[in-house]
Amino acid sequence: MVSTSGFITSLGTSFLIFVLLILIFSFLSRRKSNLPIYYPALLLKGKAPPEPESIGCGIRTPWAWMKEAWHATGEELVEIAGLDAAVYVYFHTIAVKIIFWTSIFCVPILIPIAATDNNNELQAQDPATAANFSSLDNIAMGNVQNKSPRLWAFLIGGYWLSFVTYYILREAYKHVIELRAKDQSHVRAKPEQFTCVVRDIPPTAKEESREAQVDAFFKQVHPETYEKSLIVTGLSKTSKLWAELETAKAKLAHAEAVFEESKSKSKAGPDGVRPQHRTGKFGLYGKKVDSIEFWSEKIKELTPKLVEEQRRTATEEQKGAAIIFFNSRRAAAEAGQERHSPFADRWEVLPAPEPRALVWDNMDVTFYQRLVREKVVYLITFFTVVFYMIPIGLVAAFTTLPNLTKYLPFIKPIVDIGVVKALIEAYLPQLALIVFLALLPKLLLTLSKAEGIISLDHIVRAACGKMYYFVVFNVFLGFTIFGTVFGSADSIKQLKAAGNFSFNSIIELFGASLPPNATYFITFISFKFLAGYGLELSRLVPLIVYHLKKKYLCKTEKEVQEAWAPGPFEYMPNVPNDLLVITLTLSYAVIAPLILPFGLAYYAIGWFVQRNQALKVYVPEYESGGRMWPHIHSRILVGLFVSQITMLGYFSVKKFAYVVLLIPLPFLTLLFANVCHKVYYPSFRYVAIAVASEEVKEVPTLSSVVAAFTPTCLLEGSNDVKDIDKYDDGSFQDAESHLPSKTSSGIASPADGALAIPIASPADGALAHPIVE
Amino acid sequence: MVSTSGFITSLGTSFLIFVLLILIFSFLSRRKSNLPIYYPALLLKGKAPPEPESIGCGIRTPWAWMKEAWHATGEELVEIAGLDAAVYVYFHTIAVKIIFWTSIFCVPILIPIAATDNNNELQAQDPATAANFSSLDNIAMGNVQNKSPRLWAFLIGGYWLSFVTYYILREAYKHVIELRAKDQSHVRAKPEQFTCVVRDIPPTAKEESREAQVDAFFKQVHPETYEKSLIVTGLSKTSKLWAELETAKAKLAHAEAVFEESKSKSKAGPDGVRPQHRTGKFGLYGKKVDSIEFWSEKIKELTPKLVEEQRRTATEEQKGAAIIFFNSRRAAAEAGQERHSPFADRWEVLPAPEPRALVWDNMDVTFYQRLVREKVVYLITFFTVVFYMIPIGLVAAFTTLPNLTKYLPFIKPIVDIGVVKALIEAYLPQLALIVFLALLPKLLLTLSKAEGIISLDHIVRAACGKMYYFVVFNVFLGFTIFGTVFGSADSIKQLKAAGNFSFNSIIELFGASLPPNATYFITFISFKFLAGYGLELSRLVPLIVYHLKKKYLCKTEKEVQEAWAPGPFEYMPNVPNDLLVITLTLSYAVIAPLILPFGLAYYAIGWFVQRNQALKVYVPEYESGGRMWPHIHSRILVGLFVSQITMLGYFSVKKFAYVVLLIPLPFLTLLFANVCHKVYYPSFRYVAIAVASEEVKEVPTLSSVVAAFTPTCLLEGSNDVKDIDKYDDGSFQDAESHLPSKTSSGIASPADGALAIPIASPADGALAHPIVE
Repeated sequence: MVSTSGFITSLGTSFLIFVLLILIFSFLSRRKSNLPIYYPALLLKGKAPPEPESIGCGIRTPWAWMKEAWHATGEELVEIAGLDAAVYVYFHTIAVKIIFWTSIFCVPILIPIAATDNNNELQAQDPATAANFSSLDNIAMGNVQNKSPRLWAFLIGGYWLSFVTYYILREAYKHVIELRAKDQSHVRAKPEQFTCVVRDIPPTAKEESREAQVDAFFKQVHPETYEKSLIVTGLSKTSKLWAELETAKAKLAHAEAVFEESKSKSKAGPDGVRPQHRTGKFGLYGKKVDSIEFWSEKIKELTPKLVEEQRRTATEEQKGAAIIFFNSRRAAAEAGQERHSPFADRWEVLPAPEPRALVWDNMDVTFYQRLVREKVVYLITFFTVVFYMIPIGLVAAFTTLPNLTKYLPFIKPIVDIGVVKALIEAYLPQLALIVFLALLPKLLLTLSKAEGIISLDHIVRAACGKMYYFVVFNVFLGFTIFGTVFGSADSIKQLKAAGNFSFNSIIELFGASLPPNATYFITFISFKFLAGYGLELSRLVPLIVYHLKKKYLCKTEKEVQEAWAPGPFEYMPNVPNDLLVITLTLSYAVIAPLILPFGLAYYAIGWFVQRNQALKVYVPEYESGGRMWPHIHSRILVGLFVSQITMLGYFSVKKFAYVVLLIPLPFLTLLFANVCHKVYYPSFRYVAIAVASEEVKEVPTLSSVVAAFTPTCLLEGSNDVKDIDKYDDGSFQDAESHLPSKTSSGIASPADGALAIPIASPADGALAHPIVE
Repeated sequence: MVSTSGFITSLGTSFLIFVLLILIFSFLSRRKSNLPIYYPALLLKGKAPPEPESIGCGIRTPWAWMKEAWHATGEELVEIAGLDAAVYVYFHTIAVKIIFWTSIFCVPILIPIAATDNNNELQAQDPATAANFSSLDNIAMGNVQNKSPRLWAFLIGGYWLSFVTYYILREAYKHVIELRAKDQSHVRAKPEQFTCVVRDIPPTAKEESREAQVDAFFKQVHPETYEKSLIVTGLSKTSKLWAELETAKAKLAHAEAVFEESKSKSKAGPDGVRPQHRTGKFGLYGKKVDSIEFWSEKIKELTPKLVEEQRRTATEEQKGAAIIFFNSRRAAAEAGQERHSPFADRWEVLPAPEPRALVWDNMDVTFYQRLVREKVVYLITFFTVVFYMIPIGLVAAFTTLPNLTKYLPFIKPIVDIGVVKALIEAYLPQLALIVFLALLPKLLLTLSKAEGIISLDHIVRAACGKMYYFVVFNVFLGFTIFGTVFGSADSIKQLKAAGNFSFNSIIELFGASLPPNATYFITFISFKFLAGYGLELSRLVPLIVYHLKKKYLCKTEKEVQEAWAPGPFEYMPNVPNDLLVITLTLSYAVIAPLILPFGLAYYAIGWFVQRNQALKVYVPEYESGGRMWPHIHSRILVGLFVSQITMLGYFSVKKFAYVVLLIPLPFLTLLFANVCHKVYYPSFRYVAIAVASEEVKEVPTLSSVVAAFTPTCLLEGSNDVKDIDKYDDGSFQDAESHLPSKTSSGIASPADGALAIPIASPADGALAHPIVE
């Protein structure tokens, strides 16, 4: 339970941090040396950062970025940042809308109704309950007396909240589907629109090659539209060799740059100093060698090895999966939603994810493996969600200062220094929490990948789902339960003493502590948006890392670029955390309406910040076509469902007989979720044929589509080989079937180059290859 | 609880009835006048009934039919009786297999183990339980003492039973899918293979006609393969007029036949007597008119009315649904599984059911209506299943003889007759049960139709599902509960008196009465197969009805044919009843293995009888392509699940600690059901493209396909109109779009008549029109 003064102090601190960070951002973002940190997306597109509206001293007006974020249109956002980022920003719009319209009723009507009652006062006077309320609790539903007719207003609030959410979510879903349809029917076609993946290919007949098998099958069922196939092969060795080769090349470039630099330096003279390093781990021990020679040798040694391995892989390690290419968007969309074999465990054809999102490793996980893996992962996730806090508690209990000094006596002298001791004592208990929570997203991503999912965006969504249940269970439920138990320790003792320790009295205790908990969650939310968004906008950490790297490590242009590479939005911890906020806001909207303005502020500031980041900072690694929306939609509904159940419970605690009128609400939510799933979700699974049939103006060439789907470690090595021609019509083609390209096809044959545009390769080459781990 | 002597009497009686019915069948089935009753399917195909293996006196050897049933191959069965009937017979094969392999372990091992223990004896000696066991109970698991190590054998029996079922069901599903694929890729294509239905067509733009809208949409998305559309129209008035016209025609033919007959009879002389009838209801009152004139007038009057109505309907009552035709099987199979609009509540395209199974009335039930209807129907079904017995009990309580004579005093003189009184007293209590149970299938079919399902076979399956839960709940659970309560009334009283009336003691009471209940279910099953299949085979009721009708009512050839028309298999009460038997057998297989031979006999005799009926008697009205199988498969698994839960409960009652080893079984069943659903079920929803792509030799003409899907009441009336040419290119075509037929198409254009065969119209015209109620 938080006192009013504590609440204001906490809010004030967060606000100060926020103002400070915004000022830092305004100051730093115009420095020329910082531009790659604050406008990387613009720089990568070759655009100039916006002109500063300076207020002098090189400081931008602190709201200039907000103006720019506000003025960008939806089309611009999709064009610049991609549909995924636009959908993520749109999530903030929708959250603002839902909270705003809920507030319209809840804030001006429910707060006065609560404030003019005096339940808390009565309770505080009652010595039996020994309750202790702050003035903030007086404007929440807890201040209304049991069985009071005033509760009707709160009940109406519950309905208002639910219907506002349904209405806005429905409109939002429709809007996103339209965005998606526009994206899919775009006149500039994308390579994945001509492509499907096929899994669970049955074993080949004796002597038959995989390509022959796949080609024969698809030529029979799609005689007019099937172009060619690319068989999935085992890549672990190839990608390892390729990574070694890439490292060697980078090291060589680095060494050459160091050598060039040393020439210009006065100390070594015009000949410069050839850089040297030791061959042991981290260059710490071993023979000292000339770096340029060493890495050149290494490259010469690795390149033929890689080519040999590529050759071997293509013929010997073919798996029961393939990527297949069609000559039109419509044909690929059709094939992707059709059942090809009467048995679902053979020839499963799916729409291809975007090339960079394809998880090559998971392509050959078979049907039955997927079934088992899925179940095992769900089980592990369940235990993680429910019991993750237990090891944290255990570790925290163990890592006390006396324990540490006992088991690690050598740290004693350090620990005995006063300041260090104070610091360790203050932060040690939270260390376990921080470390374990930081590990969680990685763990959940690994779990989701283990399910056998074949696209990165799907893995991220699966992990987000798991994370959402984790935070709701541990933050929302966990805090409510622990908060009640610890906050009401006295009350519990009293009840016990009075022999009055029944299930009902416990429920009432929980009920009584619900509205005070809201105050805690308000500070939680405001810290998140003030400090969190301030930090996000000011990008202090990447800024410092960049400048350090640039100064001490980077020698080549490529290394500098890698140092400021912004990366994509981190949906994985962001989306579930944002969803937690709306879940909290909806849950307390009626019980403690004061949370609403804070929820609103969270999403409103978030809207500006994330829009700014989408437009100017982050560069998507891949596009999923807004597939995050159904995920967000259904989690908001989970939040609403939790909220309705909470209300049901709290109205019961208030002994309000008409609480039965709230019972239909959770069922309505289930029904609404079911209807939305039936009506809207299918268009996220498949591309509607009517959409795929729309006219295409710019089509990629078949070879560019195939290249987009070929893993970089199979493509790139070969460029360095002298006998590239021999290679090209040689063994590599084994894994790529060749059929004559049709002239009447929608896909441009290499001949009509006039129409064909190469697929825009992302600026940063490192991002462009499908993930092979 | 059934005593041993009662059990044997009951079995003996059933067996006598069976022998008698088989003898009657052997005797009657060779009489020439009875052939239409015993071999209608053969006669309709123009084949001769099989030659009799007579044993003299015109009696066939009683096992001749069994020989014939045995010798027919699977292909013959599909060819003659259709895939649906073959799947229904195959269900019997599978049940026999499951029960046989279960028996292999349970009968020779579990029965001796139970018989050599003496728990029942001990219980009977114990005055506290006052138990009363028959000798049959001594060979069931109840006779094993609590906590005995002998229970291990029964536990293994549980596993054996489960794995036998899994294995056989999996093989069976594969087999049925192969049958289905063979059927679908048959060289002789069926009209529904070129057809899809489309529902939820959005409102037309102003001034645009439905046909233009549908054609424009599908010409855009399937430019190469779309042929034409047939818009669904409101048919209630048309079909009423058409029915009146058909009645008038039949009556005219009847009257003419009566007139012809009277000419040949000596009484009236060569001129004959013109038949007359009264115009009032049932010909009981009103003006007497000349029948031939009256019905001729009526036909003249109705025909133009019908044509006018057809015209009006086609233009004015167009609904938001259509039937669309493609030029190849592959194209229709593709379209039927594709999402056409990004929104699922628009342009839903589904594979067409077979024309005669299409429920025209439900075609325009909109997406949201279907959602609501489905939920409402499920709710009503739930209440029906749980509470249907209550009104039966109430009515039974009310319809006692004293009550009847009190409220209906005029029946008193009849009731006072001794024999009548005895009869009424004996059967009155069951009258309510019989009437209500007879109404149930009709009610469930009506409920299923109200869901908005568009094919008759699907409606039947939906009703079967509901019925299955009804019989399992009411027969299996109901009898177990009521049997225990009434059978143990004494025990309950004793427990109450002893102040020992706890939940546990009740559970033990249920447990103790489980094996004795098995005896009741054995008599239940044997009555069903002996009397039930005897009656089915001998067809006494249709035989008597036919001869009565033929003698007194039928005058025209068509009327005679209608009198013996065999109709299709009645899957609706048959399938759930058969499923109840396997549920009972599986549930008691381990607890009271004696049930196994009886279950085996049920399905073995059923196999012969139903195979005979499929080959020689029933004529399918429509084909669903074996879609009943997934339904049967999952209901058998429900039975297994019930069985595993029962075992869990009963092992607990036996205080067997290793009962925990049984806990994985129900989960395994859920997993197995889930895997089968994922792997095998999709091929029942959609036609695999690989299957649809196989070569077609005989294709129907487009016009014959369209005609097959046009409701009879729109087709037939027009034949009688003089100005048929004017009509044909006139308004009727409004509801049928016309696009030029493609020459390169898979579907034969009317020109190449050489290849095209008309779709075989079923012998009985009355069966051929889609249902319009």
